[in-house]
Amino acid sequence: MVNIAVLGYGTVGSGVIEVLNLNGESISKRCGHDINVKYILDLRDFKGEPVEKLIVHDYNVIVNDPEIKIIVEVMGGVEPAYTFVKEAILKGKSVCTSNKELVAKHGAELLELSKAQKVNFLFEASVGGGIPIIRPLNQSLTADEIEEITGILNGTTNYILTKMSADNEGFDSALKEAQALGYAERNPEADVEGYDACRKIAILSSLAFGMQVDFEDIYTEGISQISDIDVLYAKAMGASIKLLATSRKVGNRVYAMVAPMLIKPTHPLFSVNGVFNGIFVRGNVIGDVMFYGSGAGKLPTASAVVADVVDAAKHVGTNIMTFWSSKKLELADAKTAPHRFFVRISDCDDNTRELINQVFGKIEEIKVNAREKDYAFLTEALSEAEYDEKADKIGKTLNRIRVMF
Amino acid sequence: MVNIAVLGYGTVGSGVIEVLNLNGESISKRCGHDINVKYILDLRDFKGEPVEKLIVHDYNVIVNDPEIKIIVEVMGGVEPAYTFVKEAILKGKSVCTSNKELVAKHGAELLELSKAQKVNFLFEASVGGGIPIIRPLNQSLTADEIEEITGILNGTTNYILTKMSADNEGFDSALKEAQALGYAERNPEADVEGYDACRKIAILSSLAFGMQVDFEDIYTEGISQISDIDVLYAKAMGASIKLLATSRKVGNRVYAMVAPMLIKPTHPLFSVNGVFNGIFVRGNVIGDVMFYGSGAGKLPTASAVVADVVDAAKHVGTNIMTFWSSKKLELADAKTAPHRFFVRISDCDDNTRELINQVFGKIEEIKVNAREKDYAFLTEALSEAEYDEKADKIGKTLNRIRVMF
Repeated sequence: MVNIAVLGYGTVGSGVIEVLNLNGESISKRCGHDINVKYILDLRDFKGEPVEKLIVHDYNVIVNDPEIKIIVEVMGGVEPAYTFVKEAILKGKSVCTSNKELVAKHGAELLELSKAQKVNFLFEASVGGGIPIIRPLNQSLTADEIEEITGILNGTTNYILTKMSADNEGFDSALKEAQALGYAERNPEADVEGYDACRKIAILSSLAFGMQVDFEDIYTEGISQISDIDVLYAKAMGASIKLLATSRKVGNRVYAMVAPMLIKPTHPLFSVNGVFNGIFVRGNVIGDVMFYGSGAGKLPTASAVVADVVDAAKHVGTNIMTFWSSKKLELADAKTAPHRFFVRISDCDDNTRELINQVFGKIEEIKVNAREKDYAFLTEALSEAEYDEKADKIGKTLNRIRVMF
Repeated sequence: MVNIAVLGYGTVGSGVIEVLNLNGESISKRCGHDINVKYILDLRDFKGEPVEKLIVHDYNVIVNDPEIKIIVEVMGGVEPAYTFVKEAILKGKSVCTSNKELVAKHGAELLELSKAQKVNFLFEASVGGGIPIIRPLNQSLTADEIEEITGILNGTTNYILTKMSADNEGFDSALKEAQALGYAERNPEADVEGYDACRKIAILSSLAFGMQVDFEDIYTEGISQISDIDVLYAKAMGASIKLLATSRKVGNRVYAMVAPMLIKPTHPLFSVNGVFNGIFVRGNVIGDVMFYGSGAGKLPTASAVVADVVDAAKHVGTNIMTFWSSKKLELADAKTAPHRFFVRISDCDDNTRELINQVFGKIEEIKVNAREKDYAFLTEALSEAEYDEKADKIGKTLNRIRVMF
């Protein structure tokens, strides 16, 4: 029997208990041990609920109990999670977490500490909810040099964009519906401005390239500026707008970015719709692979956490090597990243049209019925800096979306 | 340094050498050891090629060399692979293989033997080429009870079906093109009749349900009866015909089948086209996940083999537990599996039409331009036995395709 403690009895924490109760028998078989939840740390008492007898309010009870071999951290946020996790590892306990903020900020350090202590720090649930992506990157794609990881890593924004496209509606009304359905929070900033996806691509990039990618270094743009008119044009191009979190290695330079982008049906991420997530990986020998599934939700996320618990229980006393050094990876300047751009200007007069043609050179015009006054086009591949320079010369507000084709 | 030997210098074997040469540095970092190929077993000499000095013709040289810790078996076929692999494991060597025939037939036994010998028998490349699916099933989906695995597991047939749909052409001409491009063999039976997919779903089902699923027990139907007319009707339904290898747990019964089926765009496998493979898994807590990538090819397959070598090298002296007992899983009678069916009859006279309506009851007629003489429809959900009984009553040749919606 392996004793574990769960820090935080919120959505994911209660999901972990539910999964262990529901599938306990097969989990024990796969694990070779029974998993016993000895404590749950929470500020609340949960009087009258079955978990009441497991609740403790003092972390010291948990971290000082030598019977506890594995700690599940599902509180979220950097503190006090970081202090708790570090202490646990130093006391020789493995930690499984769903906490992307913690992993993005302190992953490298906590992995090094775990290695020294011969325990494990596992975080499958921190990216892509239930989708197996951390373990595949760490253990299955070991023969490859990763050239690109591009993910739809945030279900809230993917739901909003899918809804905007399906019902030809604007961002605000799609957001309201997402909030009504519980897919978006009342303060949706972390999702819609791309901050959530940014932390996740920082984690994936660090694993893919084996060095610390700081999320603060990643250029991040959300979807709040995307309009129903953009969606019309996307459809006219046979394309779709997705919030993509991407990092690419070109020579020795790594570019990383979170931004809404246009993709076409030939891209494996095109058909990732609604609250689903998808992660596309290109390796130099494996070619293109894609992982798809529920990127959030109580049970899918708990499934990933419990799978980590099983792995930790199978590896008591052995560190599973993870290739993520604390050495900082200096990202290439995002301004030098080359893309095509979709550009759109409303009520475009003839002079502006001519100026655009002069400044942007070879373009591909896109027309949409009943939008005769617009001027909309695809540029050739330009760096961000080149695009900005050209856009400045036009002297009017241009809507632009990066293009991944 | 870890010394390995490669059995068979064919497509995959030479791919393994290529991957180790190309990515040796990063592989060593991820593995913690350098991987050194000490021997290659092949009947040929490869005079003048760089591998010449590694070639041996006598397996005893390899299996009796205590320096060899890992053997890569990429010869294919059950014998002599089985004899060689068994001997290697008994001599305390781990084995990594891409050989689906060997794994489907002797997987459970070789896993048990490996466990007893504290070595590893790894076979990621035996299903889905480079796509990580064996390790995710074995190590990532451990918190779940698997309810369904459905895969597009054969790139040749998927290429043919994609081509038939894209160019409105018949099976024979699409097969010829696949052969010309090297995607299909001169004798394409193993692919087009579903035998290849059958072995692969047997392996996946054994891992998902933890018991031996014998491939001989799986009802298997290929795609050679699918015509360009079927493709027309699929399009009229907004659907696509795919060769699906599926196994589903309903209560305590497991149904398994390989057959062409109709799927709609809402299914994650719908957009798996060309030579690509996709594997859809439904777990009782993770929900739906899908894994996508190159299901064959020299380098993708070698990528999976080398990833197994890395895993084996990291686990010298420790068995990675795999949940696949040799106890036979008795599959439910395929005749009792419920499906909707798409049924089509050419030159259908009024009497037959009336008889069909009487016999099949509630149906959904499907019409296609310029096929006015056809009678084509979707049935309600019927067991295979019920369908056969009804079809017999019509007394004419009915074309039928199972429907997954």
